[in-house]
Amino acid sequence: MISVAIMGHGVVGSGVADIIYSHKQKLFSAVGEELYIKYILDLREFPDSPFAERFTKNFDDILGDVEVRIVVETMGGIHPAYDYVKACLKAGKSVVTSNKELVAAHGAELLAIAKETNANFLFEASVGGGIPIIRPINQCLVANNVSEIAGILNGTTNFILTKMIKENMDLDVALKLAQDLGYAERNPAADIEGHDACRKICILASLTFGKHIYPEACYTEGITGITLEDVEYASVWGGVIKLIGSVKKVDKDKIDIIVAPMFIPNESQLSSIDDVFNGIMVRGDAVGDVVFYGRGAGKLPTASAVVADVIDCVKHLKARKYLSWIDSDNSSVIPHEDSVTAVYVRASASDRQAAYDKAESVFGEIHRLEKENAPKKELAFVTEPMTVKEFTEKLKEFESDEIKAESLIRIGDL
Amino acid sequence: MISVAIMGHGVVGSGVADIIYSHKQKLFSAVGEELYIKYILDLREFPDSPFAERFTKNFDDILGDVEVRIVVETMGGIHPAYDYVKACLKAGKSVVTSNKELVAAHGAELLAIAKETNANFLFEASVGGGIPIIRPINQCLVANNVSEIAGILNGTTNFILTKMIKENMDLDVALKLAQDLGYAERNPAADIEGHDACRKICILASLTFGKHIYPEACYTEGITGITLEDVEYASVWGGVIKLIGSVKKVDKDKIDIIVAPMFIPNESQLSSIDDVFNGIMVRGDAVGDVVFYGRGAGKLPTASAVVADVIDCVKHLKARKYLSWIDSDNSSVIPHEDSVTAVYVRASASDRQAAYDKAESVFGEIHRLEKENAPKKELAFVTEPMTVKEFTEKLKEFESDEIKAESLIRIGDL
Repeated sequence: MISVAIMGHGVVGSGVADIIYSHKQKLFSAVGEELYIKYILDLREFPDSPFAERFTKNFDDILGDVEVRIVVETMGGIHPAYDYVKACLKAGKSVVTSNKELVAAHGAELLAIAKETNANFLFEASVGGGIPIIRPINQCLVANNVSEIAGILNGTTNFILTKMIKENMDLDVALKLAQDLGYAERNPAADIEGHDACRKICILASLTFGKHIYPEACYTEGITGITLEDVEYASVWGGVIKLIGSVKKVDKDKIDIIVAPMFIPNESQLSSIDDVFNGIMVRGDAVGDVVFYGRGAGKLPTASAVVADVIDCVKHLKARKYLSWIDSDNSSVIPHEDSVTAVYVRASASDRQAAYDKAESVFGEIHRLEKENAPKKELAFVTEPMTVKEFTEKLKEFESDEIKAESLIRIGDL
Repeated sequence: MISVAIMGHGVVGSGVADIIYSHKQKLFSAVGEELYIKYILDLREFPDSPFAERFTKNFDDILGDVEVRIVVETMGGIHPAYDYVKACLKAGKSVVTSNKELVAAHGAELLAIAKETNANFLFEASVGGGIPIIRPINQCLVANNVSEIAGILNGTTNFILTKMIKENMDLDVALKLAQDLGYAERNPAADIEGHDACRKICILASLTFGKHIYPEACYTEGITGITLEDVEYASVWGGVIKLIGSVKKVDKDKIDIIVAPMFIPNESQLSSIDDVFNGIMVRGDAVGDVVFYGRGAGKLPTASAVVADVIDCVKHLKARKYLSWIDSDNSSVIPHEDSVTAVYVRASASDRQAAYDKAESVFGEIHRLEKENAPKKELAFVTEPMTVKEFTEKLKEFESDEIKAESLIRIGDL
């Protein structure tokens, strides 16, 4: 029997307890040991839980109990999760977490402590909910030099964009619907401003390239500026708008990492990933493109990934899993202004034709997008790829009292 | 340094050698040990290989060398691969194979031997080429009761069907093109008659449900009967034709396993998997649907999966991986006539309207498919779901001197 403690009985934590309870037989046959939930840490009371008498409000009960070899952290946020996880790892207990904020902010340090104490620190559920992604990158694709990862990493924004694309719904209306359905928080900033996706792509980048990439090094743009006009122009162009988290190797030791809405061509596997689903493309030198698709959030999907990590900890109580990266000062990330991208520009101009001519003289070759029923003063086009710096300079030259850029969206090279 | 032997220097085997050679540093950093190819077994000569002096024609060199702890089998076919693999496992050497025929025919026995001698027998590359699927099912989805797996498991047939769907190419022409491009063998039977997909779904079924399912228990139908008319009717219906390998739990201890062309709705993630790509959907009770997508064949993709397994063997030279299933007599597979499916029927009839009326009186509710420019004597419809037995009886009643069924294709419930 293996004693486990769960810290946090919220959506994911209670899902973990449910799965361990309801899948007892299946889990037993996977490892030949029974998982026993010895403690659940939560400040609230849950008298109706089948584990009611195992609840504690005191973290030291868990830390001080040598029988507890595996601790699940599903509290979320940095404090006190960080201190608790650190203390558990220092005590040689393995920790499994679904907390992307924690891993993105302190992964390197916590992995280093785990290494010292020969414990495991696993976090499959922190990216892509129940979709297997951390373990496949770390194990299955180990014989590949990965050059790029790009994905739809946030279900809430994907739901909103899908409603805009498929039902012509305004962003505000779609956001309200997402909130009513429980997909978005009352304060939706972490989702719609891209911070959630940013944490996830930072975790994937750290894992893939072996150095911790902190969220502040990742240029992040949310979806709040996207309009139905842009959605229509994306369709004219032959694609859809998706919020993409992407990291690319651009040089031996340099990476380009970004979260931003992008035009994605209809031919890309990522273009058909709709609603709250997530999809992650990994590009390896041997395997080519591999895509992982599924529910990126939700109680049971996420909890099932946590429990799979717990099982892996049970199998590796003695032998550590080789999952690690080193700390870094973010110096492997190129400045955002050096990032190369083609850009979609929607602009208003008193003289549309003159503005197109100016666009051509300033940006060089452009691909005009002509939409039915476009306002007379609106123009839209896609530039050739160039650095953000170059684009910004050209844009300044393009804009004038007569011409104003209304919307700028990157073209995803996927 | 870990000594490895590779048996078979064909497409995949030479790819394995290439990757071990070219990814030395990456592989070293994954396990902290160097992989050393000590032997390559092949009856042919490869004087230009960087490993030229390591070739042997004598299996006993490998078997008798205690330094060789890991053996890669990429010979293909059953003989002599089966005997060699068995001998290696009996000698306590871990074996990694890409040989789906071997695993489908002898997996249970070989896994049992591996268990006895505390060796590993791994075969990620046997299904889905470089796409991670065996390990994700076995590890990442361990906290799920999987109810169904369905996938596009054969790249050659998917290429042919894609050419038929997108370019209106006849099956024969598309097959010829696949052969010219090296995607199909001169004798394409294993692919186009569904045997390759059958072996793969049997491996996935064995892994998922814990009992060996032998290929002869899996009803298997290839794509040779598919015509461009059927492709058009699938489009009218709102989908595409794909060769699907599927296994479903239908009862506590019973499964329904099949390989057949099916109508797949455009909304399904599997519908957009084109060309030589494979895609596999796994349905778990906690995680919902997860889809894995990528190149299902080819030298480097497949070899990269083999090398990932080799790395896993190195990490688990002492502790066995928990990957196993027991032998069985196929009694968990329901008779094919009890399988439930809706069916697309294309028929010719002297009196089209009378035939539709008869279809309604015989099959009950049907969904008529009306195609532009259909021959006057052609009709097509989709039935409600029913058992194969019931359908067969009704079909007999439906057909007559006046009415002849030209094509029957299952409707995939995906």
